[in-house]
Amino acid sequence: MPFSTFGELLRVTTFGESHGAGVGVVIDGLPSGLPVDEAVIQKELDRRRPGTSKFVSPRKESDTAEILSGTANGKTLGTPLTILVRNTNQRSKDYGDLLEKFRPSHADYTYFKKYDTAPQPGGGRSSGRETIGRVAAGAVARVILGDEFNVQAAVSAVGRVVAGKLDFNFAAGENNPLRFSDPELREKAEDEVWAAMQNLDSVGGVVDLRASGFAAGLGEPAFDKLDARLGAALFSLGGVKGVEIGSGFAAARQRGSEYNDTITPDGTIWPSNNSGGVLGGISTGQELRLRFAVKPTPSISQKQMTIGLDNKETSVEVHGRHDPCLCPRIAVVAEAMVALVLADFYLLQKRFR
Amino acid sequence: MPFSTFGELLRVTTFGESHGAGVGVVIDGLPSGLPVDEAVIQKELDRRRPGTSKFVSPRKESDTAEILSGTANGKTLGTPLTILVRNTNQRSKDYGDLLEKFRPSHADYTYFKKYDTAPQPGGGRSSGRETIGRVAAGAVARVILGDEFNVQAAVSAVGRVVAGKLDFNFAAGENNPLRFSDPELREKAEDEVWAAMQNLDSVGGVVDLRASGFAAGLGEPAFDKLDARLGAALFSLGGVKGVEIGSGFAAARQRGSEYNDTITPDGTIWPSNNSGGVLGGISTGQELRLRFAVKPTPSISQKQMTIGLDNKETSVEVHGRHDPCLCPRIAVVAEAMVALVLADFYLLQKRFR
Amino acid sequence: MPFSTFGELLRVTTFGESHGAGVGVVIDGLPSGLPVDEAVIQKELDRRRPGTSKFVSPRKESDTAEILSGTANGKTLGTPLTILVRNTNQRSKDYGDLLEKFRPSHADYTYFKKYDTAPQPGGGRSSGRETIGRVAAGAVARVILGDEFNVQAAVSAVGRVVAGKLDFNFAAGENNPLRFSDPELREKAEDEVWAAMQNLDSVGGVVDLRASGFAAGLGEPAFDKLDARLGAALFSLGGVKGVEIGSGFAAARQRGSEYNDTITPDGTIWPSNNSGGVLGGISTGQELRLRFAVKPTPSISQKQMTIGLDNKETSVEVHGRHDPCLCPRIAVVAEAMVALVLADFYLLQKRFR
Amino acid sequence: MPFSTFGELLRVTTFGESHGAGVGVVIDGLPSGLPVDEAVIQKELDRRRPGTSKFVSPRKESDTAEILSGTANGKTLGTPLTILVRNTNQRSKDYGDLLEKFRPSHADYTYFKKYDTAPQPGGGRSSGRETIGRVAAGAVARVILGDEFNVQAAVSAVGRVVAGKLDFNFAAGENNPLRFSDPELREKAEDEVWAAMQNLDSVGGVVDLRASGFAAGLGEPAFDKLDARLGAALFSLGGVKGVEIGSGFAAARQRGSEYNDTITPDGTIWPSNNSGGVLGGISTGQELRLRFAVKPTPSISQKQMTIGLDNKETSVEVHGRHDPCLCPRIAVVAEAMVALVLADFYLLQKRFR
Repeated sequence: MPFSTFGELLRVTTFGESHGAGVGVVIDGLPSGLPVDEAVIQKELDRRRPGTSKFVSPRKESDTAEILSGTANGKTLGTPLTILVRNTNQRSKDYGDLLEKFRPSHADYTYFKKYDTAPQPGGGRSSGRETIGRVAAGAVARVILGDEFNVQAAVSAVGRVVAGKLDFNFAAGENNPLRFSDPELREKAEDEVWAAMQNLDSVGGVVDLRASGFAAGLGEPAFDKLDARLGAALFSLGGVKGVEIGSGFAAARQRGSEYNDTITPDGTIWPSNNSGGVLGGISTGQELRLRFAVKPTPSISQKQMTIGLDNKETSVEVHGRHDPCLCPRIAVVAEAMVALVLADFYLLQKRFR
Repeated sequence: MPFSTFGELLRVTTFGESHGAGVGVVIDGLPSGLPVDEAVIQKELDRRRPGTSKFVSPRKESDTAEILSGTANGKTLGTPLTILVRNTNQRSKDYGDLLEKFRPSHADYTYFKKYDTAPQPGGGRSSGRETIGRVAAGAVARVILGDEFNVQAAVSAVGRVVAGKLDFNFAAGENNPLRFSDPELREKAEDEVWAAMQNLDSVGGVVDLRASGFAAGLGEPAFDKLDARLGAALFSLGGVKGVEIGSGFAAARQRGSEYNDTITPDGTIWPSNNSGGVLGGISTGQELRLRFAVKPTPSISQKQMTIGLDNKETSVEVHGRHDPCLCPRIAVVAEAMVALVLADFYLLQKRFR
Repeated sequence: MPFSTFGELLRVTTFGESHGAGVGVVIDGLPSGLPVDEAVIQKELDRRRPGTSKFVSPRKESDTAEILSGTANGKTLGTPLTILVRNTNQRSKDYGDLLEKFRPSHADYTYFKKYDTAPQPGGGRSSGRETIGRVAAGAVARVILGDEFNVQAAVSAVGRVVAGKLDFNFAAGENNPLRFSDPELREKAEDEVWAAMQNLDSVGGVVDLRASGFAAGLGEPAFDKLDARLGAALFSLGGVKGVEIGSGFAAARQRGSEYNDTITPDGTIWPSNNSGGVLGGISTGQELRLRFAVKPTPSISQKQMTIGLDNKETSVEVHGRHDPCLCPRIAVVAEAMVALVLADFYLLQKRFR
Repeated sequence: MPFSTFGELLRVTTFGESHGAGVGVVIDGLPSGLPVDEAVIQKELDRRRPGTSKFVSPRKESDTAEILSGTANGKTLGTPLTILVRNTNQRSKDYGDLLEKFRPSHADYTYFKKYDTAPQPGGGRSSGRETIGRVAAGAVARVILGDEFNVQAAVSAVGRVVAGKLDFNFAAGENNPLRFSDPELREKAEDEVWAAMQNLDSVGGVVDLRASGFAAGLGEPAFDKLDARLGAALFSLGGVKGVEIGSGFAAARQRGSEYNDTITPDGTIWPSNNSGGVLGGISTGQELRLRFAVKPTPSISQKQMTIGLDNKETSVEVHGRHDPCLCPRIAVVAEAMVALVLADFYLLQKRFR
């Protein structure tokens, strides 16, 4: 996972800043002959697109994918597949004196420490727009993994509203703008977010993710274990502060006799699946179970204390177009990342066949 | 993090199985002139060594480090530093019919699916002995990071006993064999483990870790963020099922106005440090705060249902020498991994100077 | 050097096919604050551009560079720098039945064996247009290496006309369309190429390259030696069949007492420099001396025997726009590759400071 | 090819100095179930071992391979395979004041510039003993490639004696200590070397190499082309100053109509094979043809001018045990490197099946 590249055999390199010409991705190492065209990619981009409800940023980007290389006649060539999404709705003037202050809980301060660069409009490279390249690549990873592969993420908590039920079979979009997993608590969850918005505030949340339809045997000990790579994939998303696999933190309170999953003939049914589909860093073939915590959106319109580029105390109010809760959109990106991890390990495993 | 190698510029490759000739590590990319001899390494190996209390496996390995290459006159040469620890106390006969069955919650089953190999004595490569190489490398990473660097891990929960207080200033070893962080609850924690042992059972737990004395600016967006690499490092340890950074899952319940850390002049004091020392994948210069959950030791002497190599149902009892709780030892390994991550990013950051 | 990516810390990923939307490059790992804008890149692209004399292909591409990401206000941000050159002058209809036959000495056959893809218009990914991304990246590498750095390549043989003198101080372009190094033999060299053209044939040649103005100590033993990486860089250019460093093949005929370079105080003058600037895979600080052989342009209009996609014998005549000698253009690309290698090792070496 | 590691999926990391505890190699990414034991490795080590004729160094190392990890019951486990060869016949006292001077044409000077380390006994890491790990790994690579795979190198020139005939069917060892390819010129070649030895001098030479019995389709455009990786592999051997593939430098003098290889049905016969088995960086399935130039052994007993660590002029005579011509031994190492390259690309190509 060097810098802006992810993966060993399926190598995904994202590029782009919030307010430059565009964002995109180069996907190298692809098999040839895969059916990939702009529609395949656009479908996933549309799922993460802003502007679809009162709970996501009203920034109206069309986020239209253009394939620059790597396909001919709707099939991959085996060469680097490049996808570009132009930035079309930048309003740099929104930023004003923000470019001279470090917004709390944003990357402005650490980019300054690392690169010696002043805050960039919209966060520059640290903007959520970087994830467009990931979602585009994830769409291609799904094609590699085939029709049996399935990955779905649902929001299981927003603020203090915690789903009692994990329901992944929801229609996303206007009908469930928060992608909240518990139908009975959806309204309550929306109220939680709305209350924060009214108070110029934001909320955190939790996302649960399930994946199935891939083989046992994926993952590369010792350091490139499936759970290690998944952990890296999820923690590489801005705002993720915790990741669990299988039982997660609950495992700490279990005894071995409770926790250990019973292995059944053909490995077809592991009723408990406390392992979450991974043992020794390698997939068991059971359902992959992940869960991650997302911090509240850092951009809030309340007045906050911070410092400026001049290292003096000052205050800042971050106005503009921001999601009050990152979860609904980060859920889609997490699906893409999990697909990328599994597709890469799938290709790696083929060397042994 | 390809296969058995970890790191970009500080490249650590571990090798070895539980019952082969030995385990060890090659550390490539080291600066020259660092003071490293066998004593530097042995000191850390002794901290993770079994056989020091009733709560760790009575397997009496001396775990003696031999430097095979990479130093002369007690200084690194800039060439690959290789450390070998011979296996001396293997009792393959302990394993008996275990080698024809998949132990629940062990890697036997997934190694079989991946490599088409039968269970190996002691788990083979998936044995905890693989971490000897990591601890040895971590000792070298501490030298790179210098005297100001400090990393310490403490066990903050075993089973249902949860520390109320995080105390990292304990003397390890016989005085506190569980490395438990709360002095007032130490006895209770030991009782919890002892009760499980009496019942032929094991317990999980939680480890908290703190690191300080390193610069702001470490970490490499987009995919090789500091938190992403730390997440991978910790999830690459067998038995870790959850990882938190800063507020962790608690962040999901916070509002932005509560969560956001106030940045103060010179970045010297961020009183809340909910970010745990990382923003945008880059170190803020504040204390690094990590927490991870460890599953109960999979090897228990109770009778468990499983399948054999013949894919038929059978039962298994895992006797032999096993820690009833992995936490005290994994804490030492986690310190090593965090040191490796930070040393690597430290070397990477120097390219910008 | 995985797939379409080159370099360890300065990571260059090229993309694009001859007849897709365009070609380009993502440059990751860049320091921030470097003065890079489109003019810096365009200057080098113009040096390799076709259409400037009777000896290069009359395909009139403007080859205009657009920076998609990685800079703001004419300075690098430390984020991936992406450069796109649209393909504007594709004439796919030129290809006709060529897409059903394997052109001799082209990559059509091997791409078919590797990717199971039919021949692509213009060679697709194997087209020389892929090198546009390299030249663009090389322009940025020169900025990293600074004003003292100098690299220059000159054509020292075309066909049977071999330069007696290596003169790198020529003005390129119309005045010397072959970039031939020996002023006295320039006309003869042009006659050689012209004679081949009249005969619907092509010629090979040799390029000599010199670089200076970089430090001693660059290169990474054991496998990533400076000469190893330079060898890879040059052999990664289509048509290169031989590479020499320093004395090259002449060293095979020398005795040690003749070959060994005398080291002088301060390492300032090694009069002989048979080593070509590299010892033990590490730069000595002396001038880097490389030489490489280029095969004749594979596309010739003469009738040649080959096979088709149906595996049956057939004949082929490759008409269209092709340089009769690859050397003048590959010389510019070689300069870029050498700059990339040295810039990467320069950044790597900084980790020891 | 980062630092001391070579390969993408078959990752070979060599370690060790001339006068440390030993040299060796970790081979990661291996398939499981391959028949590998110490005898398989020892066989190849014995081919490169010194002490077998008057033309190789009389240093009597037994070079005995010990497998430290990665196999059980004579089969690979899929885990890192580590091989250690102890150094047994070091005579550090031979070196005397050599450790304060830079031997001409050795790596002493550049290691000093890179690592700030004084010359090490026997050259330390830059010693030819580093290649023991390569040869050991090459033995394993041959097992991966299977019985049909064949690679053979022969010395085709020593000093001014150039083979008229390439004969690879010789028995190595005492019968042909120079591995010289032309039976009629063997005696003359031996006289050439002997004459140099009498004069306290050394000779260079040329090695030709052929490989066959592997598939078409191997190699990874754009930067990791088969010829690029082979070039890197050969130039990573100390003393190699030139590499040719197929026609090599002769291609520069050919016209396209002469050079272009005719493709025949099924790709079975390419009579000319000027390409040397590679087109567009991908194997054609034809015989691989390589040729490389080796400089004269740098260690000669004649008095040479150089400088010391104090940067003052001085003279040096390099006595001790040195081969008068590197070719016979480097030929064996080159075979190993070619096997490693092909085995890696073979594993990589399987991801497309």
